[in-house]
Amino acid sequence: MATQGQVITCRAAVAWEANKPLVIEEVQVAPPQAGEVRVKILFTALCHTDAYTWSGKDPEGLFPCILGHEAAGIVESVGEGVTEVQPGDHVIPLLSGRMQRVQVLQIREDEPLCQYTVVHDVSVAKIDPKAPLEKVCLLGCGVPTGLGAVWNTAKVEAGSIVAIFGLGTVGLAVAEGAKAASASRIIGIDIDSNKFDRAKGFGVTEFVNPKDHDKPIQQVLVDLTDGGVDYSFECIGNVSVMRAALECCHKGWGTSVIVGVAASGQEISTRPFQLVTGRVWKGTAFGGFKSRSQVPMLVDKYMKKEIKVDEYITHNLTLPEMNKAFDLLHEGSCLRCVLDMQV
Amino acid sequence: MATQGQVITCRAAVAWEANKPLVIEEVQVAPPQAGEVRVKILFTALCHTDAYTWSGKDPEGLFPCILGHEAAGIVESVGEGVTEVQPGDHVIPLLSGRMQRVQVLQIREDEPLCQYTVVHDVSVAKIDPKAPLEKVCLLGCGVPTGLGAVWNTAKVEAGSIVAIFGLGTVGLAVAEGAKAASASRIIGIDIDSNKFDRAKGFGVTEFVNPKDHDKPIQQVLVDLTDGGVDYSFECIGNVSVMRAALECCHKGWGTSVIVGVAASGQEISTRPFQLVTGRVWKGTAFGGFKSRSQVPMLVDKYMKKEIKVDEYITHNLTLPEMNKAFDLLHEGSCLRCVLDMQV
Repeated sequence: MATQGQVITCRAAVAWEANKPLVIEEVQVAPPQAGEVRVKILFTALCHTDAYTWSGKDPEGLFPCILGHEAAGIVESVGEGVTEVQPGDHVIPLLSGRMQRVQVLQIREDEPLCQYTVVHDVSVAKIDPKAPLEKVCLLGCGVPTGLGAVWNTAKVEAGSIVAIFGLGTVGLAVAEGAKAASASRIIGIDIDSNKFDRAKGFGVTEFVNPKDHDKPIQQVLVDLTDGGVDYSFECIGNVSVMRAALECCHKGWGTSVIVGVAASGQEISTRPFQLVTGRVWKGTAFGGFKSRSQVPMLVDKYMKKEIKVDEYITHNLTLPEMNKAFDLLHEGSCLRCVLDMQV
Repeated sequence: MATQGQVITCRAAVAWEANKPLVIEEVQVAPPQAGEVRVKILFTALCHTDAYTWSGKDPEGLFPCILGHEAAGIVESVGEGVTEVQPGDHVIPLLSGRMQRVQVLQIREDEPLCQYTVVHDVSVAKIDPKAPLEKVCLLGCGVPTGLGAVWNTAKVEAGSIVAIFGLGTVGLAVAEGAKAASASRIIGIDIDSNKFDRAKGFGVTEFVNPKDHDKPIQQVLVDLTDGGVDYSFECIGNVSVMRAALECCHKGWGTSVIVGVAASGQEISTRPFQLVTGRVWKGTAFGGFKSRSQVPMLVDKYMKKEIKVDEYITHNLTLPEMNKAFDLLHEGSCLRCVLDMQV
């Protein structure tokens, strides 16, 4: 079944240096080797971790690089021994980490801001060909991360009180997951009060802006909930907020899940008493979903209108407009910006 | 059923100042009020948290005070409305915290280094009168803490790899609990290699002395276990060791339980990546046992020889010898020293 491909010359958005505008360059993508799949990327969504890498603050970020990690496309060719997918299959590439960076001179895998990418066959999820790729590309990272943090990592039960720190895409997906799990109160915390109206649509029932309070936010939440929340989720990537998220949990059983990605080298801390008195500190990557088998299930849930996807897409642009897309990411109103990669 | 008692004048070991020898003083113990129980303390075991409070390093320690928190005795009288126990019942007082301190001038509750103590009726566990009080006094704190950390908090499964940091009484009780849970490997870590022989008797299968290695102990354990342990337990109270205990866990599922009591004001820290990649950080107090109902069950298990108690008692002394008992606590060979309180 293997099809032998040729080197493909196509376009990619290359970050040559930190914080410098991305440049559309012609790049060459090698044919898939044994066990690999070459995917024509149709749509890529940008997220804040891409902006973080581009900012140069990530010491692991190597430049030049090609950013992006939420994408959807169609299998163009497969290497020897690949049996699970074939050319023409609609797929979501599954990225092993949350930030994928590839040096331009060795374009080999996982570079969704390129028009073609090569991934291992275990790293693509074959999905329903009727699913709109310009939407379900979001199911490659942020939305499953939030839903899975609730369903797989925390296992929120009906009637629980939930606190969500940060109301971006991941935080809103946590809210959606908590609502689906029948949480009784879903408290959204953000320093931008403008985000509350939109958050209601995802299930948030109460809003707290730390700027409105003199007390530490953990104390505000403990007071508001008569002892603390059952589950909290940090969806920002700020280590101080991670501590607050733990400490606002109810003693005896409260569980806090770290979902956000902190800047490299930063550390979380707390008094051990917080854990000894029964709180649990966890984290999640990709929401604990087993990507290859569960992403198609999420696509099916979307097709049955059981989970939102469209509502997270606030902007649609094209590959040549990608610098504008990065600018938008810094605006509070932007959740996901989806780029049409073949324009 | 209530019996009205008089004020009792008896002896107590009073710590007048930090680090100064304890003094046997005559103290007066008031009769129990409504809902309270006065207990004649027959035996008290000393543990390291008592020594910590006595050292003056605990900023919450108020002097003068009466130390001690593992004890067993007989109900002397009960206040109004007490129905669960009556005079003559054999009991283990259950202490709400792990360190109980009472100012001498207000001797009201929880002072097992006094010959009599007054506790709330919900804070005594009525036990089998055939159980030897000079042994089962240990079931008031350290041994249940270790067993429960394994059984209730971590819920160790058969075949698990377990690491135990610190091979004192609590660490050995963790080993015993892990052996009962059919752990496949029980790795003891201690800077005193002399402790290994004794630890074998409690279930420890392998011993690691951090002093024998140049690498950080978490790396030593990851290498030794081909990726990390399934469960780790910190039984020392050292925040650096707590970090090592978390970081030696296997990514994806490893769970670390803080059992030791850290010095006040100290904090634990780690990179959030440790949690995001699937490790879980927990803690336990009294091993998660619901004291009043479960301590009698532990006494029964001891009577059926299903759990050890005698083996943790390395020294037997009397109330007037209590300064010697504190000296012994600083020796590596001492686990629990039981004081006969009525001599």
